[in-house]
Amino acid sequence: MNINDLDTPSIVVDLEKLDANILRLQHYLDEHGIVNRPHIKTHKIPEIAHMQIRAGAVGITCQKIGEAEVMARAGIQDIFIPYNILGPAKLERLMHLARRCNISVTADSEITVTGLSAAARQAQIELPVLVEFESGSQRCGVRSPQEAADLATTIAHAPGLRFGGLMTYPSSDQTDPFVKATRDLLSPQGLAIETVSGGGTPRMWEAHTHPEVTEHRAGTYVYGDRAMIHLGAMQLEQVAFSVLTTVVSRPTPDRGILDGGSKTFSSDTFGLEDFGLILEYPEARLYNFSEEHGFVDFSACDRRPEIGERITVLPNHCCVVSNLFNEVVGVRNGEVEVTWPVALRGLMQ
Amino acid sequence: MNINDLDTPSIVVDLEKLDANILRLQHYLDEHGIVNRPHIKTHKIPEIAHMQIRAGAVGITCQKIGEAEVMARAGIQDIFIPYNILGPAKLERLMHLARRCNISVTADSEITVTGLSAAARQAQIELPVLVEFESGSQRCGVRSPQEAADLATTIAHAPGLRFGGLMTYPSSDQTDPFVKATRDLLSPQGLAIETVSGGGTPRMWEAHTHPEVTEHRAGTYVYGDRAMIHLGAMQLEQVAFSVLTTVVSRPTPDRGILDGGSKTFSSDTFGLEDFGLILEYPEARLYNFSEEHGFVDFSACDRRPEIGERITVLPNHCCVVSNLFNEVVGVRNGEVEVTWPVALRGLMQ
Repeated sequence: MNINDLDTPSIVVDLEKLDANILRLQHYLDEHGIVNRPHIKTHKIPEIAHMQIRAGAVGITCQKIGEAEVMARAGIQDIFIPYNILGPAKLERLMHLARRCNISVTADSEITVTGLSAAARQAQIELPVLVEFESGSQRCGVRSPQEAADLATTIAHAPGLRFGGLMTYPSSDQTDPFVKATRDLLSPQGLAIETVSGGGTPRMWEAHTHPEVTEHRAGTYVYGDRAMIHLGAMQLEQVAFSVLTTVVSRPTPDRGILDGGSKTFSSDTFGLEDFGLILEYPEARLYNFSEEHGFVDFSACDRRPEIGERITVLPNHCCVVSNLFNEVVGVRNGEVEVTWPVALRGLMQ
Repeated sequence: MNINDLDTPSIVVDLEKLDANILRLQHYLDEHGIVNRPHIKTHKIPEIAHMQIRAGAVGITCQKIGEAEVMARAGIQDIFIPYNILGPAKLERLMHLARRCNISVTADSEITVTGLSAAARQAQIELPVLVEFESGSQRCGVRSPQEAADLATTIAHAPGLRFGGLMTYPSSDQTDPFVKATRDLLSPQGLAIETVSGGGTPRMWEAHTHPEVTEHRAGTYVYGDRAMIHLGAMQLEQVAFSVLTTVVSRPTPDRGILDGGSKTFSSDTFGLEDFGLILEYPEARLYNFSEEHGFVDFSACDRRPEIGERITVLPNHCCVVSNLFNEVVGVRNGEVEVTWPVALRGLMQ
């Protein structure tokens, strides 16, 4: 099937660009001796995870137990879940997973560590736990090297657990000094930091400027989006991800309405003005959404689309868009080569 | 299973409140002689559509052919798709549907009408088509009574089509004068406006103040959310929809982090400050999301949650939240009674 025969809205992934994006980051990280552990949040598709591993990734990063379960069933052997796993239901599933493949997790509190330790001891496994620390993003994570060292020591002494290192998101100027200070606190105890896991696509090409970071987790780089272009992390020609839409209404000479809204693109602006770049009309502004319609101002364009015309949108934030679709269509040279279910989508727990 | 044994994040629907919401609007519309045609965009669950019809709804409203296909397979007999259906693939599916149940659609352009007519003529069916007009929302829709009358005439003369009336969203002060003016233009031709379909939950209790509107389409009313409370359309005690979350991190005395972010709640603020109401800590502010974490400021609260504590969130906009989950859990008196797959979710075409 040709791309022009796809009905809309459809997510189209350019397979050549996808391959190139996977290889580009892998080569860069290889060159600098940094372990690559891509985050599958962007694609949520086992086959793409396998492509990343075949290219040289050591394993993958998931955010939910349910995501890791699907990836394990698809044959992925090394999965990092940088999340505080709490509660008996999730802990039991985590232990089942840890028997079948290499699983590691994070903690930023003693409460999390206590739960992990009890579950791992009962399951008679040794679970690697990394300490999550904050590098300025004010997300999760301990906030001082002393807290990090204390929690690392707690993990190291907890039955069933192994201290696996440090983790933060995203890597920033605060990352390396924090790691150094933590190492200084842990060295006297003979506790080594085997892995320091950093991440992020926006500043992925600066990964080599963080000598303390041994592993990089990037997600968005596989597809790319308008935000990554805006931030200078990717070029327009490198973006592999677009949404094919149709103009369904032209109520005024300036206004056009697309067959995708907030349930197609999400309402995520990612801090940018407007909601996406329209490839055929780069001067147009995708200025608003209702749930099933996208509103475009074509007033700055020389020509205007007809009703029924197909329009290609590069969304601001591809991760939340792929998460809204049941499937994505892989295209090579304009021909559909594969349709991938977004297998991990909606696995909330 | 008790609600306290549900893992998080989970959508919990209070079945008593759901029943009451369905009946409350039905009784109001019945009392005023207004046809009820609820929009299933909010729940996307066939069983809830059947509850609405058993309560007295004439049929349902869907936005996508794929949604209507699932509802038809589930036994729903009368489906309105207020959307410009364009392109051979969708038109063919529409005709298949129209043979199996009562389907009606809208158009706001001659291009849409031409496509519908060709398909209906070939399928040898008579398809009711309503003219969509704008009541001030600047979405789709013709913008003057003259345009509406011209398009109605075109539909009435198009082979395979029947002029089904007028449709707008939402009903507003502009709706009735527009309908009257259009009727005045159509009367000399002997063309009656059999249905005027308006809609919206925010001002649903004003439906009786629109004497020209014969049918009401509301979606959000079944569940309710923080925006509907804010707009005065529903009371807090009437909201049937909440998201059960867990506090997974407490990095500072004031900050707490929930196990749900923009992939759980969407980034839709619906014009409100913050992203939801936390029932156990109403003074807390759910001020930001990353994809899998929600950030809460507890500084205004007398007490603060522990890590692992369960927290109930009423989101700003329930429609986009249910659209992110694979299933919702129906609860009565604290006990789980049913788990419904969100069967229509992700059906983009």
